[in-house]
Amino acid sequence: MIIILKPHASKEEAQKLLRQIEQKGLKPLYMPGVERTVIGAIGDERVLQSLHLNSHPLVDQIKPILSSYKLVSRELYPIDTRVKIGPHAVGGETFTVIAGPCAVESQQQLDDIADYLCTHPVAGIRGGAYKPRSSPYSFQGLGEEGLKILKATSERTGLPTISEVVDANDAPLMAQYVDCLQIGARNMQNFRLLEAVGKLDKPVLLKRGMSATIEELLLAAEYIVNAGNPNVILCERGIRTFETATRNTLDLNAVAYLKQKTHLPVLVDPSHGTGVRELVIPLARAAAAVGADGIIVETHTNPAEALSDGHQNLDPQQFDDLMSSLKPFVEAAGRRL
Amino acid sequence: MIIILKPHASKEEAQKLLRQIEQKGLKPLYMPGVERTVIGAIGDERVLQSLHLNSHPLVDQIKPILSSYKLVSRELYPIDTRVKIGPHAVGGETFTVIAGPCAVESQQQLDDIADYLCTHPVAGIRGGAYKPRSSPYSFQGLGEEGLKILKATSERTGLPTISEVVDANDAPLMAQYVDCLQIGARNMQNFRLLEAVGKLDKPVLLKRGMSATIEELLLAAEYIVNAGNPNVILCERGIRTFETATRNTLDLNAVAYLKQKTHLPVLVDPSHGTGVRELVIPLARAAAAVGADGIIVETHTNPAEALSDGHQNLDPQQFDDLMSSLKPFVEAAGRRL
Amino acid sequence: MIIILKPHASKEEAQKLLRQIEQKGLKPLYMPGVERTVIGAIGDERVLQSLHLNSHPLVDQIKPILSSYKLVSRELYPIDTRVKIGPHAVGGETFTVIAGPCAVESQQQLDDIADYLCTHPVAGIRGGAYKPRSSPYSFQGLGEEGLKILKATSERTGLPTISEVVDANDAPLMAQYVDCLQIGARNMQNFRLLEAVGKLDKPVLLKRGMSATIEELLLAAEYIVNAGNPNVILCERGIRTFETATRNTLDLNAVAYLKQKTHLPVLVDPSHGTGVRELVIPLARAAAAVGADGIIVETHTNPAEALSDGHQNLDPQQFDDLMSSLKPFVEAAGRRL
Amino acid sequence: MIIILKPHASKEEAQKLLRQIEQKGLKPLYMPGVERTVIGAIGDERVLQSLHLNSHPLVDQIKPILSSYKLVSRELYPIDTRVKIGPHAVGGETFTVIAGPCAVESQQQLDDIADYLCTHPVAGIRGGAYKPRSSPYSFQGLGEEGLKILKATSERTGLPTISEVVDANDAPLMAQYVDCLQIGARNMQNFRLLEAVGKLDKPVLLKRGMSATIEELLLAAEYIVNAGNPNVILCERGIRTFETATRNTLDLNAVAYLKQKTHLPVLVDPSHGTGVRELVIPLARAAAAVGADGIIVETHTNPAEALSDGHQNLDPQQFDDLMSSLKPFVEAAGRRL
Repeated sequence: MIIILKPHASKEEAQKLLRQIEQKGLKPLYMPGVERTVIGAIGDERVLQSLHLNSHPLVDQIKPILSSYKLVSRELYPIDTRVKIGPHAVGGETFTVIAGPCAVESQQQLDDIADYLCTHPVAGIRGGAYKPRSSPYSFQGLGEEGLKILKATSERTGLPTISEVVDANDAPLMAQYVDCLQIGARNMQNFRLLEAVGKLDKPVLLKRGMSATIEELLLAAEYIVNAGNPNVILCERGIRTFETATRNTLDLNAVAYLKQKTHLPVLVDPSHGTGVRELVIPLARAAAAVGADGIIVETHTNPAEALSDGHQNLDPQQFDDLMSSLKPFVEAAGRRL
Repeated sequence: MIIILKPHASKEEAQKLLRQIEQKGLKPLYMPGVERTVIGAIGDERVLQSLHLNSHPLVDQIKPILSSYKLVSRELYPIDTRVKIGPHAVGGETFTVIAGPCAVESQQQLDDIADYLCTHPVAGIRGGAYKPRSSPYSFQGLGEEGLKILKATSERTGLPTISEVVDANDAPLMAQYVDCLQIGARNMQNFRLLEAVGKLDKPVLLKRGMSATIEELLLAAEYIVNAGNPNVILCERGIRTFETATRNTLDLNAVAYLKQKTHLPVLVDPSHGTGVRELVIPLARAAAAVGADGIIVETHTNPAEALSDGHQNLDPQQFDDLMSSLKPFVEAAGRRL
Repeated sequence: MIIILKPHASKEEAQKLLRQIEQKGLKPLYMPGVERTVIGAIGDERVLQSLHLNSHPLVDQIKPILSSYKLVSRELYPIDTRVKIGPHAVGGETFTVIAGPCAVESQQQLDDIADYLCTHPVAGIRGGAYKPRSSPYSFQGLGEEGLKILKATSERTGLPTISEVVDANDAPLMAQYVDCLQIGARNMQNFRLLEAVGKLDKPVLLKRGMSATIEELLLAAEYIVNAGNPNVILCERGIRTFETATRNTLDLNAVAYLKQKTHLPVLVDPSHGTGVRELVIPLARAAAAVGADGIIVETHTNPAEALSDGHQNLDPQQFDDLMSSLKPFVEAAGRRL
Repeated sequence: MIIILKPHASKEEAQKLLRQIEQKGLKPLYMPGVERTVIGAIGDERVLQSLHLNSHPLVDQIKPILSSYKLVSRELYPIDTRVKIGPHAVGGETFTVIAGPCAVESQQQLDDIADYLCTHPVAGIRGGAYKPRSSPYSFQGLGEEGLKILKATSERTGLPTISEVVDANDAPLMAQYVDCLQIGARNMQNFRLLEAVGKLDKPVLLKRGMSATIEELLLAAEYIVNAGNPNVILCERGIRTFETATRNTLDLNAVAYLKQKTHLPVLVDPSHGTGVRELVIPLARAAAAVGADGIIVETHTNPAEALSDGHQNLDPQQFDDLMSSLKPFVEAAGRRL
């Protein structure tokens, strides 16, 4: 850690800081400069948290050298983690495709789309039973009824299920119904929820918050792994920027960057990442090309009647197009569908 | 609501949509143009949600005319709402000042700062018992122990207390200890939490999410009011932008805009809004000038030893400066401290 | 165009506006609603600019229906434009690869990299003679000397050249030396410069401004085409967002969106778009997959000694890797290198 | 400067870098850590630019300690600079108010507004002769004719004039007509233009680019001062963020921050900073409170007929309100109108 002191800091005050660093077991370094004094602390700088250096009145800036996450870091665990959702391993040779409606609306709706999806190599079916919606007047999901529908469809078709958990208290119940718990973008920093799913024996699909930095996403994953659950799948789903032509700005830089920094698998959600049906296919192809481990897309047998997010849903014909369009890019990436 | 159809939409398809709008009780309008057909729907467009028009394959764009919030809108309730925290009314002639440490650390710490704050006209003391922190390795707060400390200090000094609630399940317990529940920026769209505090008989301080639009903030407030609790105070605390010289970008445009659109009181948090101790005083003055109903600032008897966010805490000397510096601006705004 | 009036606008005032719209040759529509009156104007709404409706005190909002650009719009010209740089057509079956150093540093440097690039199917060599740099103390380019170097290299090797023009006055001179003029991100809204290159008979590579919307990029292109030069190539090079792990956020949504809205070819710059050497290859692959017509990448025979932007330059070995890694994705996209 | 090496960098390679730093006249520091080796360079790190360290393959990150600007830094010149526009000193006891239309439209229009402005203590009249507009189909300004109108109005009324220069070539001509040259947001990094006005003997009003960091703004000012013109006035005019309720997000944090970092005066433009007429007054008051040296606002005798930006123009009645509303805040800030 590099600690830059304010211009008026005296030598005595610097010495006091150096002693504190030494007492924490790190090697202190004194670098008196012409305009500023700089102090270095060499070793595991995470132990310096208790010194509260960034509150110190004489400290101008702190520049950490090590990353603030450990368990999810590739520097410490260089081998790719594979996370199983039912029989399917996310992060392996197979490019994962998860599909399904934004929200579970009825047993019939989910059965229809599930039967259709079974004609393709999909790894699981998604569908929300609890829907976080900006407006209190929008459809909020079927709740536990939706979970029962998901389970019934899964038992009949064999498709593993993925569904969003929105409250720490719901987590154990949801774990009885579904095969993978999704943490949505709005809850990426709901730390209670992260800890709750960290105590369960179910894989977690963690979506990046819409204004979360990559480091914050990795720290959110660190919460889950630190609580005991190593089966975390990251998901890039677009960030909020000044651009309004698309609903979000899909950050594929982040995918390539994450693959270098963490051993966890990374999926891409081109449906929320663009918010525009016509852009889903090209961005799904780009996701395969940039090195993502798979995609999660919204699909509905009748998007025009979807109870939420219909404008970004693919209908079966479009999903067929997606899969055939995706195939050569997945193979170019050395994987298979 | 204005519905712009895609270029290839036929007249028959447009007529079908017009009939659907009419069936919902709205007045339909047909506007065939040279390049595009446009459809209007006049009346309370919120009933059109069930048509899922933005999912419709022939619909290119939807342009709502009415705002999506009602209960918090000044158009419907033009009179300023005053929200009481203990004996103090937020939104009245008195400019509200809430102060205190980022986190409750010990009974001694809180008593020290409370005794000091009692020498100033402050409306309440803030302090977190549950701290949402980006890293699982940072100080997470004292939990219920912190709530007990807050209550003891309040009983001794008479200062009302404000503390953050981070989980829907904690809300009833917290309501027994504190006078005002804060929803933090990270939880602004934790809808379960919004509904939980909406069922309590305690004022709620709702902070804007760091990438939430003003409309999303108002819709979050609408959740609380819609659940039964009209005592909501909004708080601008800075948004996330590309600028890194300051921790956040305090959006005072939003304060002036909110005062025009909603009858709810609006506070400003210059501590998180800047993240820099030296900027707190000028931005607090600007908050008074722009028309905010008050401020909430972080204060600590010894910022250098604060367990979180010390770099943006004011020490007692600086808080004295804040109060004397603020006074003429509060008076220029036609209020009093 | 849809014009939403303020709540207090009277019927007479609305009628006055309707007459003005009619006088401009558009069909006016009167839609009195419960809460608001809405006015429609059907026809080529661009003629309404002279009414200055968005300044009108009674107008609350204006919602245009047609896009504000025409010449570059695919709605009006549905066929893909191919722009020739020397013998190479950008926008055709061949995926365009333009490479070269950030800045021209010397004849030797440019010759070295040009000789190397000739071993690959590259369409042109890039290199800046005039470098816009944030700091006045950074290397500013060789100026006309750099242009001469570019021309000499081009004549010897046959490689077409691309170089940035930073001032309207330089444009005619530059056109004598190079085969394609680049407008950099910082100058995307330097309208004098856009008009100057619009009067030349040279292709223009127009980079998106770092905070320009897609619509602003298309309007900048419209300036050039409107001034007489139809040979415009668009280039996505990353936008400025809150994320700091990468230098910019490459917006591949924009590429897919642009391909639907405009007939102009679109390139991607993964070097500036990421700012990180290790991310150039995966994002170049993603660019091919998303439907871009090519890429422009920074390459240097010795990145460690590059006078600018060395951290995002590929060395020859890395460029070899890029080309072999790119090939299957270009072919999957139905093109060839 | 702190240089963090990549994990695999050898001791020999580190030694080579240390020698290079020493040869540049700086004191090198070697800090071998457990996971990473860190190198320090103590002294004026700006001389290290020629080492191109951030291009070095073994360098992971560079963390500068000193700011990259010098001439405009308060650390080097602690005394407030006052810049004279005609007889008025910007940056002194008087709070500067500059007002006028967005664009010069006719002699009559400018005379009308000038006569009105003379009834208030305004320091100068603004008006664009060259208008940078996003669309080629928008009004582009009267050009030199507009400059002549400005000069005639100034000679008759004694009001100094401020007008935007959009091209380096125009700068000398403009300097003959107007008293202060404005660099607009879109041209903040038009370095040719910065150098051109840097060679003139006229004050320059430099507006922050809509996505420029504070540091980039200061570096742009450094260009002008470095070219020989110390009379630079900075202007915060709103940045581009995700928020769309207002045209831009006025960054008053930046004003307070700038006042600490630079000795140059800082104005605020609440017209462009909000883009909404109703928000101009509250934000102007906030500008006075936060410590700005003045404001520049758009005013028009008939906003409904303004040829550009009418929706953010104040009419005379509103300008009267602004001035009387502003007065107590200016006085609270220890200044006078």
